[in-house]
Amino acid sequence: MEGDPGQRGMRPSRETLADVLRARKVALVGASDNSRWSHVSHATATRYGFPDELFLVNRRGEPAHGRKTATSCREIGEPIDVGLLLVKGESLPDAFRDAAAAGASSVVALASGFSETGAAGARAQDALVELADELGLTLFGPNCLGFVNYVDRTAAWAAPPPVPRAEPGAIALVSQSGAIAIQLGRFAAKQSIRFSHVVSTGNEAMIGAVDVAEALVEDERVRCLALFVESIADVGRFDAFAARAAELEKPIVMLKAGRSPLTADLIASHTGSLAGDDRVIDAALRQAGIVRVDSLEQLVVTAGLFTAVGRVGPGKLGVVSISGGACDIAADAAAALGTPLATFSDDTVRRLTGGAVERTARNPFDVTGAAVRGAELMGDAVEAVAADPDVALVAVVDVLPDGDTVAEPSARLEVLAGAMRVARAPCVLVHQVTQDVPADLAARLTGMGAAPWIAGIDRAVTAAGHLIRRSAWGPRPETRVETPLEVEPRPLSELETLALLEANGIPTIETRLAATADEAVAAARAIGYPVVVKVACAAILHKSDVGGVALDLRDDDAVRASFGRVIERVADRSDIDGVVVAPMRRGGVELIVGVVNDAAWGPVLAVGLGGIWVEVLGDSALRRLPVSRIDVEEMLSELRGRALLDGVRGGAPADVSRLTDVVVDVARLALRLGPRLESIEINPLRVDGAVVEALDGALTWR
Amino acid sequence: MEGDPGQRGMRPSRETLADVLRARKVALVGASDNSRWSHVSHATATRYGFPDELFLVNRRGEPAHGRKTATSCREIGEPIDVGLLLVKGESLPDAFRDAAAAGASSVVALASGFSETGAAGARAQDALVELADELGLTLFGPNCLGFVNYVDRTAAWAAPPPVPRAEPGAIALVSQSGAIAIQLGRFAAKQSIRFSHVVSTGNEAMIGAVDVAEALVEDERVRCLALFVESIADVGRFDAFAARAAELEKPIVMLKAGRSPLTADLIASHTGSLAGDDRVIDAALRQAGIVRVDSLEQLVVTAGLFTAVGRVGPGKLGVVSISGGACDIAADAAAALGTPLATFSDDTVRRLTGGAVERTARNPFDVTGAAVRGAELMGDAVEAVAADPDVALVAVVDVLPDGDTVAEPSARLEVLAGAMRVARAPCVLVHQVTQDVPADLAARLTGMGAAPWIAGIDRAVTAAGHLIRRSAWGPRPETRVETPLEVEPRPLSELETLALLEANGIPTIETRLAATADEAVAAARAIGYPVVVKVACAAILHKSDVGGVALDLRDDDAVRASFGRVIERVADRSDIDGVVVAPMRRGGVELIVGVVNDAAWGPVLAVGLGGIWVEVLGDSALRRLPVSRIDVEEMLSELRGRALLDGVRGGAPADVSRLTDVVVDVARLALRLGPRLESIEINPLRVDGAVVEALDGALTWR
Repeated sequence: MEGDPGQRGMRPSRETLADVLRARKVALVGASDNSRWSHVSHATATRYGFPDELFLVNRRGEPAHGRKTATSCREIGEPIDVGLLLVKGESLPDAFRDAAAAGASSVVALASGFSETGAAGARAQDALVELADELGLTLFGPNCLGFVNYVDRTAAWAAPPPVPRAEPGAIALVSQSGAIAIQLGRFAAKQSIRFSHVVSTGNEAMIGAVDVAEALVEDERVRCLALFVESIADVGRFDAFAARAAELEKPIVMLKAGRSPLTADLIASHTGSLAGDDRVIDAALRQAGIVRVDSLEQLVVTAGLFTAVGRVGPGKLGVVSISGGACDIAADAAAALGTPLATFSDDTVRRLTGGAVERTARNPFDVTGAAVRGAELMGDAVEAVAADPDVALVAVVDVLPDGDTVAEPSARLEVLAGAMRVARAPCVLVHQVTQDVPADLAARLTGMGAAPWIAGIDRAVTAAGHLIRRSAWGPRPETRVETPLEVEPRPLSELETLALLEANGIPTIETRLAATADEAVAAARAIGYPVVVKVACAAILHKSDVGGVALDLRDDDAVRASFGRVIERVADRSDIDGVVVAPMRRGGVELIVGVVNDAAWGPVLAVGLGGIWVEVLGDSALRRLPVSRIDVEEMLSELRGRALLDGVRGGAPADVSRLTDVVVDVARLALRLGPRLESIEINPLRVDGAVVEALDGALTWR
Repeated sequence: MEGDPGQRGMRPSRETLADVLRARKVALVGASDNSRWSHVSHATATRYGFPDELFLVNRRGEPAHGRKTATSCREIGEPIDVGLLLVKGESLPDAFRDAAAAGASSVVALASGFSETGAAGARAQDALVELADELGLTLFGPNCLGFVNYVDRTAAWAAPPPVPRAEPGAIALVSQSGAIAIQLGRFAAKQSIRFSHVVSTGNEAMIGAVDVAEALVEDERVRCLALFVESIADVGRFDAFAARAAELEKPIVMLKAGRSPLTADLIASHTGSLAGDDRVIDAALRQAGIVRVDSLEQLVVTAGLFTAVGRVGPGKLGVVSISGGACDIAADAAAALGTPLATFSDDTVRRLTGGAVERTARNPFDVTGAAVRGAELMGDAVEAVAADPDVALVAVVDVLPDGDTVAEPSARLEVLAGAMRVARAPCVLVHQVTQDVPADLAARLTGMGAAPWIAGIDRAVTAAGHLIRRSAWGPRPETRVETPLEVEPRPLSELETLALLEANGIPTIETRLAATADEAVAAARAIGYPVVVKVACAAILHKSDVGGVALDLRDDDAVRASFGRVIERVADRSDIDGVVVAPMRRGGVELIVGVVNDAAWGPVLAVGLGGIWVEVLGDSALRRLPVSRIDVEEMLSELRGRALLDGVRGGAPADVSRLTDVVVDVARLALRLGPRLESIEINPLRVDGAVVEALDGALTWR
């Protein structure tokens, strides 16, 4: 039940799609007592009373589920909105025509066996889309479960309900996989976290997850979107949706499968699509303000926290607990999961210690078992921590009431709930371990004001980190549109690339071209020893791989000998321009700075530490273009080898401001070179104190 | 309620402690209707019917909990086994004497305010231990909840029961923190995972978690130990316990708080103890075959899987699911959590695809929705995957039955349970999301043979990884005892250190000492240019920090000039021996190899990539001594920059076998130098193809 992002055909407008998701008259086509799918679809629709009218269609007119059936949609005798088609793949075209003739504006196709099975299936799927287009039908699927709309109480869903007996919530869930949607719904129900909509998009022949999300984000009853996707098909559309969600201040939380290379491979194999480079996706989502999570549970819990709390102010997480052990675990979790912990002000410390000089108070704050007797101790601590200027959100780590245990912590919880209500910063009640939070417990917590809550320290600390970071995020100021640069898209030699860089404000090392050994010696003398000699050939991108580089040449003889060796290595080529002579540099830090035009995401800037650092560690940071100075500063600070720029081993610290300027200029140049640019790479870009210079450059066109 | 590992006094023997944990006659001292602690302790003991006899003691003889009380233990009129002391700290000495006089062999002290509060508290705690020793009492705590013994149905526990209404299991839980023990118990109960014992050790004045674990590991009804510890006090004792558990083939699963530096700090502050370097602890636990987990939930779930499955054979994890989405998530989780996935053999692929050449089958294997109709498809797939020679354990990812949903997947689950029962490799049923698994569901699963199960893909994949790795672990062959080496513990100069290394089989670079510029030039000529010149002074460990190193000197003049510069830098010192002259080396890979005598864990070997690698990335691997060649090979493969040894950029690959020998020799030498050795460090140890040589060495004594 996984999606193929290769949508075809006319996409319905946002408004049309929103209408479709409110369809009230549903025909269950393929209704039969012999079909498991029919049983569950019928039970979902009737037991939970979703659509206004549910019509059963059985082509032989046999009764199903104790009700009469029509032999076709047309025979129903009144117009329908949507056909929920449980029929086999080969019967879909007829079912489409029948549904359209009965006035349906959309169909949900459950049948599998299309693009996910290979080329023949993909062709059959294309034919379905063409037919739906002709008939003016919006097609969900194929290989898809359909949708449930809790806020309008309607559904066309070919499975058990993803959220049983639920009141509507404010989280719209969109999942390419129907099976995963059911599991997410089940988990959410057990946590008493509620959805406004659940939509499965399956093979996405016409309608993708982003299309659905785009329609739902406009619904004022939807405050947060939770997405499970395996691939993002249309980046332009995705960008527009993300921008619109940001404008409406509706957070998007996403579980994007395919982090591991194996998974990317799996997805390609079972959906016939490419997953894309996960690191590029990571950067793209982050730039768009989209919260990426790592597990099904975290998707639901994080969306739940966003919906409950909204945006928090600037600051970090404060933690208060009655258990020192829980404080340790919260601190470990915060460090491991990257959630920033607040540092308490002197005022806060005084409030927490009652001014006792021999005591101290740190975050996480351990109220100690004393609060078992005096609950107000812990209530006061919550208020004090929430008042700290560095605290954006308070995790109140305590114990949820449980009918199974003898003790009832409700007295303390009442006090805590009171403190949570009046606290300056938002608070979340955290139960130390994960567990179900059934409806009666949830109602009790909500009633006493001890909301929101999260069961499980790790989950809570992770969700808190997402909320804090997302709240600090804002769309970056628009970078100005770059004037296109007229460059003929032919292979550029190293010298031409360096000249192009230099002409566009990027400092480069002095280089000279030499066609003979004598010219090389003359160039070396002019530049001053020591020098390097490199083969000059536009077609050779990695010169050292072909033995085309000689380093640290200290005199005429060395240059002459190296010229011979280098030229000899490429003797079989006819496109050699001679050698490039350049000064030999020592010390400093070498970076690699490049822009690659990603097939899906467009131009992506990569900054890494050069040489073996990038080869051995893959230590680089990525951003889609355009980027601002702030983006580049962030990229540099993300590098694991960042300390090298601060001046390790007595070296002078790099002029990071200057370096940032140069990287921004490289990104700008890449944009100006237009969409035919395949890649531009400076490797290395050398930084030595305030000196930043490109030592080598390469450029390719598509 | 956290523990202080600074145990004092006579520890009881394992046998005594085992007897104490079976105590049947319990006096609740401080019983009162006005005490919350008394209420919960009484309710736990009576409602769950644990001890044979529970006596209430109230010093004024007031009735409590509807029962008569005695005014002292002595007044009870018959001997007691254990006093559960709810009285305040200052009343503990009297309560000890009273309990001892009534025949008690042990006391549980709930009161806090001892070593966890500072020096005065620590003194009071020492006095308690002294008194307990005098009286022949085994002391649990103070600041401790006591113990529950489910297999013998007895308890002295000052809190709600950690596991309500539970049948005994085979996992003994020992937790320094009582509050955490309660939460672990609650979580386990909700997952229907059962404990044999739950023991809280609190401040551990006399009895530590390891003492308790040591006693419990001998109990044949205990098959696995789950430990939550904040500090490990007595490493020798810990080693003996780990070795004994390995001998009995009982896995130990441990959550050790204090991973983050902040937490280590917190633990120090609230228990008055040092947490130790977490990376040393990590290495030590791993070497001892102890499974370290990262969360409370994972502690319980992992212990549950070990108890259910025992040891698995060689191989990796196989995954089968009906949902492609679940396959993606499982693959991502395996990659992120380090769980190895099996590669299916051609035979397995043929079985899974029915020989259809156009289909393929990989791990995780997606049975696809076809199995909704034909459950036997998925059953067959489970058997096929379990038969694969690379599969040690199969995760059968499906859906647990849930009364809340319309559909009952029990028909498919019956088929799966059948397959799980006959499969060659052990199987675990994995529910895609976390949820409670209440007793009735657990009984149903067990009854149908669909056991064991884990709710939540991430939890299951993590636990599977632990089980597979632990099953492959075995105690390393004993390294021979090293003959002590007689070396006078005085500061050694670089040359003396290098000589010591050379004399013990570790290859070193040729070096010469020179007291004058002329001697330095003569030495350089004898060695051959280029050379390096370094200040020679036993007291200066980091010569480049004082400007005492000159590199790449190519002629007599350069050596002469450098001699002057280097000597001038240390002109104010009287302990200079001159300079060391050595050949200048280029290329190859530099490592740092050292042994540090850790205060807690003894000599620890560190191997890392040298130079800026270790400074910037902290890229190193640690092991306690002694180490075998296998250990060192593992250490090298753990390095993030490991690829450097394989020959990056056309460099020759390092002779890893030769390097391993040299590192083992360094470790052996460190052991032979005995406990007075503080540290020995080779930095760098240069590796260039088959050449391995120490370029510099330093050694310090305690």
